[in-house]
Amino acid sequence: MIHTTLMKTLGIRHPVILAPMGGVSGGQLAAAVSNAGGLGLVGGGYGDAAWLDTELAIAAKAAQAPWGVGLITWRANRQLVDQCLRYAPAAFMLSFGDPTPYVQAIKDAGCTLICQVQDLAGALMARDAGADIIVAQGTEAGGHGGQRATFPLVPAVVDAVAPIPVVAAGGIADGRGLAAALMLGAQAALIGTRFYACREALGSDEAKRRIAAGHGDETVRTRVFDIVRGYDWPSPYTGRALRNAFLQRWHGHEPELQAQADALRDPFFSAAARGDCDTAMVWAGEAIDLIHDVPTAAFLLASIVAQAESQIRQAYTDLAL
Amino acid sequence: MIHTTLMKTLGIRHPVILAPMGGVSGGQLAAAVSNAGGLGLVGGGYGDAAWLDTELAIAAKAAQAPWGVGLITWRANRQLVDQCLRYAPAAFMLSFGDPTPYVQAIKDAGCTLICQVQDLAGALMARDAGADIIVAQGTEAGGHGGQRATFPLVPAVVDAVAPIPVVAAGGIADGRGLAAALMLGAQAALIGTRFYACREALGSDEAKRRIAAGHGDETVRTRVFDIVRGYDWPSPYTGRALRNAFLQRWHGHEPELQAQADALRDPFFSAAARGDCDTAMVWAGEAIDLIHDVPTAAFLLASIVAQAESQIRQAYTDLAL
Repeated sequence: MIHTTLMKTLGIRHPVILAPMGGVSGGQLAAAVSNAGGLGLVGGGYGDAAWLDTELAIAAKAAQAPWGVGLITWRANRQLVDQCLRYAPAAFMLSFGDPTPYVQAIKDAGCTLICQVQDLAGALMARDAGADIIVAQGTEAGGHGGQRATFPLVPAVVDAVAPIPVVAAGGIADGRGLAAALMLGAQAALIGTRFYACREALGSDEAKRRIAAGHGDETVRTRVFDIVRGYDWPSPYTGRALRNAFLQRWHGHEPELQAQADALRDPFFSAAARGDCDTAMVWAGEAIDLIHDVPTAAFLLASIVAQAESQIRQAYTDLAL
Repeated sequence: MIHTTLMKTLGIRHPVILAPMGGVSGGQLAAAVSNAGGLGLVGGGYGDAAWLDTELAIAAKAAQAPWGVGLITWRANRQLVDQCLRYAPAAFMLSFGDPTPYVQAIKDAGCTLICQVQDLAGALMARDAGADIIVAQGTEAGGHGGQRATFPLVPAVVDAVAPIPVVAAGGIADGRGLAAALMLGAQAALIGTRFYACREALGSDEAKRRIAAGHGDETVRTRVFDIVRGYDWPSPYTGRALRNAFLQRWHGHEPELQAQADALRDPFFSAAARGDCDTAMVWAGEAIDLIHDVPTAAFLLASIVAQAESQIRQAYTDLAL
C-alpha cells in the first residue's frame, strides 16, 4: 500500500483524486471514487446552481467516505461557495484565479482547502492564501489549464511550498503516472480524462468512445470552445480538447469566430445537448494514448494503484540486481 | 545501482544521456559525462565542420568509455554524417526530421542509432526507420522541441514502439526526474539544461549564471532566435529560451522581426560572440527551477543517480509501512 501524509490529512486510502470536471464529475462519479478509496470531487463548472444541488445531494448521499467539490475560482461567488458548503464536503478545490475571497468561509466550515495552480507564481499565491494542499497542474491536462508542464512543475512547486503537500495533475492516466508523480515528490495524483472514460461519468457515450480511441497528438489547447460559449476565460488559461470538425474549422481563426459567436451559440449548445461530438468539445488530456476502455471507477482506481505499486516494487528489485 | 537493458546495449553504468546541445555539449563535456558512467553526446548543431572536428577529436581522445554525437536531422547531410563517423562514436543521435537517409551509414559503422522524437507520429516514423533507441522529448525541454509534454508522451511512446527502449527527455534536472522517468517506462533520461550549467559545458559564464538563477515560468517556446539567425526550422519546432531583453522585444512580433532580420543578424551574432545574454538566447528548459549551482559533470551525474536510487528506495520502504 502506498502511504503519504496527504492521505492521512484527507482520510483516504489511495493517493488518487478525481479532477472536478465540470459537467462530467457528477455526484455519482465523485461518490464512486471516494467509496473506492480515493477522493471524489464534484465539478461545479460555471456554477449552475440547480445542477450543483442535484449532484451535491447525490454525492452526499452515496459517499461513505470523504468527498469534495471543485469550483472555477474566477467564476465563483460567495453564494455558490456557501451553497456547496451546505452539503458538508470534506474538501473544497479552487482552480484558476486568486482563492483569497473564499478561504475563510471554506476553512470555517472545517473543509480542507485544495488550490490548483498552473505555474510557480500561482503556487506561491496559493501558499500565501492559506491552501492546505496545492495541485500543480501541467499543460498536458484536459480541459482548462496553463502553459507549464507537469514533469518539471511538480518538483519545483514541491520545493517552493514545502511543507504544504503537493498533488500532481495533467498527463496521468495509469499507475506508471501515479508512481512517477510520487517520485517527483507529489503525495497524490489528480486524474481527470481517465475518469471521464468511465461508467459513472456524466457526458455522452460518444465522448467516452472518442477518448478511448483518440491519441494525444490529436489534442490541442484552444480558446475556440470558450469563445463560442461566451465564457471570457482570463489569460493564460485555454482548454485542451480532442480535435473535431468544429475545432478544425475555427482554431487559428479566433477573431472570425468571435465576430460570429452570438449567432453560433444556440446551435452550438443544441449540438452539445444532443451529444454531437463533431461540434461539441470533448475535453481530453494528452494522456488519452493510455486510455482504451470505459470501466467502472472502482475498477479503474484499483488498477491504477496496483500498477503504481508494481512499478515501485519492480524498480526497487532492479536496484538490487 | 539502477539497471536497464538500454544500459547494457550502450555499455554505460548509469541511465543518463547528455543532450547533444549545439555549441554547449562540446568534446570535454561529452567525455566528462561518459567517463562518469553516462553517455556523453557532442552537439553537432548546424553542422560547422571545423567546430565538429575540434570537439569530436577532444571527445575521442578524452573519453575512456562509450560516447557519441548528435545532429539536427533536417540540417544534416551525408558528408557531415561521414565526418562524425570517422571519429568512431559508439552512438549517433538524430533529432528533428526523418532519419531515413542516414540510417544505413550509421548502422554500417557499428553505431547505435538514437532517434529523438516529439510526438507519437514521430516515434512510429523512428521505429519504422530502424532506430535502436527512441528518445521521447517533451515540450518542457530547453532549446528546440515540439508541443507534447514528457509525462504523457513517454508511456505512450513506450507502448507504441515496444520492445525498442525509450529514453525520457525534457524537464529532467535531478534524481526525482530520473526516478519518475523510470516509472513511466523509460530506460534512461536524456538531460540538457542541467548539464549546460556545469563546469565543462561550453557557453558563457553569464548564460550558466542565468540558468542557475532563473525560473521555469520565465522560459518560453519561440521562433525569435531562429528568425534573427536565419535558420528556417520546419514546423512545429520552436526553441525554449529564458526570457531576456531581445525576446521581450520581439516575441509576438515575428513578422516585424522577419522584415528586419537581415539587418539585425550581424549585430546579433556579435552580441552572442561576446556573451551578451540580454541579446543572445540562453536556451533553457522549464526544469531550471531545480538548478542552483554550476558543478562538475561528474559530481552532477553522481548526485542525480544517487537521488534517483534514494527516491526508489524510499517509495518502496513507504509501501511496507
